[in-house]
Amino acid sequence: MPENIAFIGLGSMGEPMAANLLAAGHKLTVYNRTAAKAAPLKSKGAAVAATAADAATPGGIVFTMLSDDRALDALCAEKPSFVEKLGKGGLHVSHSTISPATSKRLAQEHRKHGVDFVAAPVFGRPQAAAAAKLWICASGPAAARERIRPLLASVGQRTFDFGEDVGAANVVKICGNFMIASALEGMAEAFTLAEKNGVDSASFADMMGSTLFACPIYQIYSKLLNAGKFQDAGFRLLLGLKDVNLAVDTAEASAMPLPLGSLVRDRLLASVAKGRGEWDWTAIMLDIAEDSGLRKAAAR
Amino acid sequence: MPENIAFIGLGSMGEPMAANLLAAGHKLTVYNRTAAKAAPLKSKGAAVAATAADAATPGGIVFTMLSDDRALDALCAEKPSFVEKLGKGGLHVSHSTISPATSKRLAQEHRKHGVDFVAAPVFGRPQAAAAAKLWICASGPAAARERIRPLLASVGQRTFDFGEDVGAANVVKICGNFMIASALEGMAEAFTLAEKNGVDSASFADMMGSTLFACPIYQIYSKLLNAGKFQDAGFRLLLGLKDVNLAVDTAEASAMPLPLGSLVRDRLLASVAKGRGEWDWTAIMLDIAEDSGLRKAAAR
Amino acid sequence: MPENIAFIGLGSMGEPMAANLLAAGHKLTVYNRTAAKAAPLKSKGAAVAATAADAATPGGIVFTMLSDDRALDALCAEKPSFVEKLGKGGLHVSHSTISPATSKRLAQEHRKHGVDFVAAPVFGRPQAAAAAKLWICASGPAAARERIRPLLASVGQRTFDFGEDVGAANVVKICGNFMIASALEGMAEAFTLAEKNGVDSASFADMMGSTLFACPIYQIYSKLLNAGKFQDAGFRLLLGLKDVNLAVDTAEASAMPLPLGSLVRDRLLASVAKGRGEWDWTAIMLDIAEDSGLRKAAAR
Amino acid sequence: MPENIAFIGLGSMGEPMAANLLAAGHKLTVYNRTAAKAAPLKSKGAAVAATAADAATPGGIVFTMLSDDRALDALCAEKPSFVEKLGKGGLHVSHSTISPATSKRLAQEHRKHGVDFVAAPVFGRPQAAAAAKLWICASGPAAARERIRPLLASVGQRTFDFGEDVGAANVVKICGNFMIASALEGMAEAFTLAEKNGVDSASFADMMGSTLFACPIYQIYSKLLNAGKFQDAGFRLLLGLKDVNLAVDTAEASAMPLPLGSLVRDRLLASVAKGRGEWDWTAIMLDIAEDSGLRKAAAR
Repeated sequence: MPENIAFIGLGSMGEPMAANLLAAGHKLTVYNRTAAKAAPLKSKGAAVAATAADAATPGGIVFTMLSDDRALDALCAEKPSFVEKLGKGGLHVSHSTISPATSKRLAQEHRKHGVDFVAAPVFGRPQAAAAAKLWICASGPAAARERIRPLLASVGQRTFDFGEDVGAANVVKICGNFMIASALEGMAEAFTLAEKNGVDSASFADMMGSTLFACPIYQIYSKLLNAGKFQDAGFRLLLGLKDVNLAVDTAEASAMPLPLGSLVRDRLLASVAKGRGEWDWTAIMLDIAEDSGLRKAAAR
Repeated sequence: MPENIAFIGLGSMGEPMAANLLAAGHKLTVYNRTAAKAAPLKSKGAAVAATAADAATPGGIVFTMLSDDRALDALCAEKPSFVEKLGKGGLHVSHSTISPATSKRLAQEHRKHGVDFVAAPVFGRPQAAAAAKLWICASGPAAARERIRPLLASVGQRTFDFGEDVGAANVVKICGNFMIASALEGMAEAFTLAEKNGVDSASFADMMGSTLFACPIYQIYSKLLNAGKFQDAGFRLLLGLKDVNLAVDTAEASAMPLPLGSLVRDRLLASVAKGRGEWDWTAIMLDIAEDSGLRKAAAR
Repeated sequence: MPENIAFIGLGSMGEPMAANLLAAGHKLTVYNRTAAKAAPLKSKGAAVAATAADAATPGGIVFTMLSDDRALDALCAEKPSFVEKLGKGGLHVSHSTISPATSKRLAQEHRKHGVDFVAAPVFGRPQAAAAAKLWICASGPAAARERIRPLLASVGQRTFDFGEDVGAANVVKICGNFMIASALEGMAEAFTLAEKNGVDSASFADMMGSTLFACPIYQIYSKLLNAGKFQDAGFRLLLGLKDVNLAVDTAEASAMPLPLGSLVRDRLLASVAKGRGEWDWTAIMLDIAEDSGLRKAAAR
Repeated sequence: MPENIAFIGLGSMGEPMAANLLAAGHKLTVYNRTAAKAAPLKSKGAAVAATAADAATPGGIVFTMLSDDRALDALCAEKPSFVEKLGKGGLHVSHSTISPATSKRLAQEHRKHGVDFVAAPVFGRPQAAAAAKLWICASGPAAARERIRPLLASVGQRTFDFGEDVGAANVVKICGNFMIASALEGMAEAFTLAEKNGVDSASFADMMGSTLFACPIYQIYSKLLNAGKFQDAGFRLLLGLKDVNLAVDTAEASAMPLPLGSLVRDRLLASVAKGRGEWDWTAIMLDIAEDSGLRKAAAR
């Protein structure tokens, strides 16, 4: 028997993910606060709901992909909520990058309505989402994770299981994002050090990216850092700051310092101060260049 | 006509590199301050010289692989020196990790004796050296680089050219080492953050190492960081500190801050203070664990 | 005509402040959530109210000294609230260390009830409060500040005016606390550097405290840092962390990095991780000593 | 019997110190590499020597005030040297800010010639030197320290003894300078945080400087930081970097991290990168302002 599934949150990541569910032959209802974003999916066969609660079917599955903890909290708190509508046997799959504490709290609240909660954040940029090449990490009740296995296979290239503790996948996503941000700072400082000493940073990056660091993060970000088109926001700097803050706050909540997180956070804040919050987050390269006397700051 | 070649400095890197030159059919004279280290190479057919100068042949090539700037400076300053012995048409290929300033100064001094100087530092641990899988970056006079191309092909899997400026390859090596050290700190903080939040760090590392960070540095160091055998020094922590200091000092000499370098440097210094200077440099993981309350410090 | 005044929040700072108002001859009503803390003041002539609202008199003045933004928000949100009770002509003087944003928001809400809001945070430890030697910074409506001038003179040795912008005094308090925390880190690192190099840190501190740094913060904290009785919490480390977080968060809210704030924050977090959250905040000295190999960490 | 005394190194500190020795009635011979700087002292009665060795009298005392370790090393290594000239019973009083290691090494070398070595670095800017208001810290042989007590009383307001270990006073000077640099960073970040939040930083500084931080360092540097005439170099930024490097290097030599030292060092390096190495070291305020979006960087 096919599942009744819905997708809520049709931004740059949610829209292609929903499209891939459709493409895989699933019947899908979608909902987005700004209704216009649902149009492309409607043309591909999705049903469009007027409210989040309308999108859900009792006992069915709802996928959500929202911007942050607050947005997801607000969605779940709507009256009537899609959670109540799902009711007994229902399942909420949360793809958003949120704190483990929020997942745990929501899971507990969902339980009151008989609804399972699975955290399933994803790694990959919008192009990867469109190509169904996302990497997914999932945590929550084993049966629920089993239930969505074929569905996740339609949106990602591989799902990594992190067990029953519902916050675990969020921790993985947060730690992974922190590793990306750290790598970005490391590359940007190294490239600037090379430039200051007369070495072409693109040549240096080519060597690293084809040897010791021959992996997507280094290859993709090396190109972006050296191309210098920092105003083309593939990933907005303020979103990067949000992610690093999640890492720093998760560290504090578990009583530990995260000094490299603090360093990157201050770097991003300097970039925001200089008016680059809406630029791509590789624009931290400019701040490093300015601190090295390579370039004048474009302050407000 | 075959080249007269010599290899000076038969430590954990130099010895397998020299062995690969022999294995490729080259006639080779070797020299090491501690003579005993030359024995394995002698049994493989190398001639063993009593002094560095004796190892060199007029107009020939000398490869050196020493521990730091000071050691190379001292070797070149010996009387008589292998540089004078090389004389007109001679070539010194320096594999050591040293500052670009030292390379430039030595190149200038060599020139007085008609000797070319090529900086050719390598990336890779001893196993990679033994397997002739090193990655080499080279800079210096184009003709000299051309002359050693087939020789370098015997010790490395690929050589990257960085042009005529003799210090350029040293800059590349220093910047590359800095990127490795930065990645190490990033991984160690991320793994600890995962552990503090109930996620098995080896599982987290497996996901990262097979997706976004599927490259040697992350795969190798993830395993070492999570295995926890920090007293088995594959790469001594004090050598890691030396490398990070080279980056920090190169930054200062070119008038720029290197905040991530400073952070890693302080991390390594705390590890030295705690008595781990002779351990593997992945032992910084312990310092991070201690700062997170996961483990008591093993202070002196 | 004498003012009808009340004091809410009788902790280690609020109690001696209220006592000084009584000692200066003012009639005073007091309230504390934990009623027992009001007893000493009752014996000195204070009226004790059963609720915060009961403590307030229409058109009168209420002083509050609570632990943080959340506590003050909760107090103001009680139904009925002391703010409504104060009503037209009433005045709320907030001594708590809170964010400027909270002050601004509360001032706006108070206005609906005809109540003025003055931010009047104080500098000084409990002994200074007992001796009426606090330094007070005040901001808010000029007339309201004028109205409380003689009252503040009973609890502090001097009041500094920071104008009409009600959040200004909070900014001053936050920046001042940040300077104290920074000085603490500077002293602790310097003392440890002296010790590691064979110089008695108390002798070094004596010289500094009687010359370049002959001022309360350096003299008081030098003694505490060198005395080493870190479990006697004069000022709890977790409160220090709260204060530094206020600085870091205020910096972020105004789009700027605060790297020294980040460094001290991570230092305090390491101390919390090691189980010292309830100790005096000078216990950061131990973390620095551990990082220097001078002492084993007393981890949980 | 009056001592035969000489003063070598007549820069902005040495010249007024020598003048105060003259003013106190001592017969004095002076020497400076750039001879012109000796003229004002000659007009006040000093004998001017043609070489450092000429300035010294057998069995007499030589005071030196040079820019750094290298300069002092070079002076002592001249042939003939003033140390040999001093010979048995001679005493060298070193006022320079140098590493403890240099003092220890020089003391040992001096001993071969029968010459005592006392480290006696000073705190205070040129105005304090002119007013004989320096604070002096001294270490070395007790008898030698006793011998110069009345002489030091002519140039400083107080001498603090740090015992027989000749490097101790250098450690004190280095740690003290580090505390000053740390305070400077703390003030500059705090003032900027105040400004970004609408509080006049001079008013904030006035409150701090008349209360918690009522001491010379905070009062003097608050004024300089808020006055903003950063191109008037009272103390050159590059000299500040040299001093912070001494602290960071002394920490490394004794195997400890100095994270606040690293932070200030990177701040100073960014300022050098931006072309402010010859400005006053309070110019770090500009770097903080730029990172906060308050001002455009004046990069090269």
